[in-house]
Amino acid sequence: MQMSDQPVIRPFDDADSAHLWALLKPVFRAGETYAIDPAISERDALEWWSKGTHRAFVAEAQGKVMGSYYICPNQQGGGAHVCNCGFVTGAKAQGRGIARAMIAHALETARATGFRAMQFNCVVETNTRAVALWQRNGFEIVGRLPGAFRHPEQGYVDALVMYRML
Amino acid sequence: MQMSDQPVIRPFDDADSAHLWALLKPVFRAGETYAIDPAISERDALEWWSKGTHRAFVAEAQGKVMGSYYICPNQQGGGAHVCNCGFVTGAKAQGRGIARAMIAHALETARATGFRAMQFNCVVETNTRAVALWQRNGFEIVGRLPGAFRHPEQGYVDALVMYRML
Repeated sequence: MQMSDQPVIRPFDDADSAHLWALLKPVFRAGETYAIDPAISERDALEWWSKGTHRAFVAEAQGKVMGSYYICPNQQGGGAHVCNCGFVTGAKAQGRGIARAMIAHALETARATGFRAMQFNCVVETNTRAVALWQRNGFEIVGRLPGAFRHPEQGYVDALVMYRML
Repeated sequence: MQMSDQPVIRPFDDADSAHLWALLKPVFRAGETYAIDPAISERDALEWWSKGTHRAFVAEAQGKVMGSYYICPNQQGGGAHVCNCGFVTGAKAQGRGIARAMIAHALETARATGFRAMQFNCVVETNTRAVALWQRNGFEIVGRLPGAFRHPEQGYVDALVMYRML
């Protein structure tokens, strides 16, 4: 148990599954920010987030899992030196530096793994908080995909490709 | 057997596996155009090309399989209306209109399936023939990923994101 206010980032363990699903479920069900089937099952969501080529981590603060991220190669072969990540934070994580700590950890993990760049393939333009967060963290908008995301309320909106060297 | 010079496009069948692998093997082994492990096994390559969310087709001319393409959703959920495709043609396909016929078929198949756009995620900038081909077929370069592809001879080169509405 981590009792300090400073978040601790550690590898995801299957014992964290219920906590991770509690973070992912509202985000996936809303369907506003991730290009994931909003009806995805708990099992499929956890498997996608943490298995296969994905390595998942969780952020704990005050003994609670308040965020998670995964990192994976974005492509194979000649593209395997660019990684992709996904981040999720719970409502209770606001203002606790959880996201900031996870991003710093992800960038360090990416470099330590030998990745040379990090890429987000589908940042929904209406997710302005995420776009601003990535820009503050050195990511540039390197591509714009017209109408590539169907927002449940705003209809077809653009998706952004964001990228930074490591 | 299709004996005319006009290519016929039909769904891939497992009986085509050896012919398809003969097309894919040199392209994947070269590692210059696809972000696929150059050492990928025949089995994994065929599965990736034709199974899961991928639907594969083959182009026959003079009774021989001379090309193939797959189509799949590029993302899930809110991104599932954009498709991705991969194309391969054999050396003997040059000048026979195989690529042209497959592209036309892919665009028709995409529209008939309900996709609204087609996206290529990682067009290697040194693959100038492909870039020009996609541009002639209505695709625009909507993103540039700096150094995102490691070419076996030219080192780190840019990858392009190309996109067209359907």
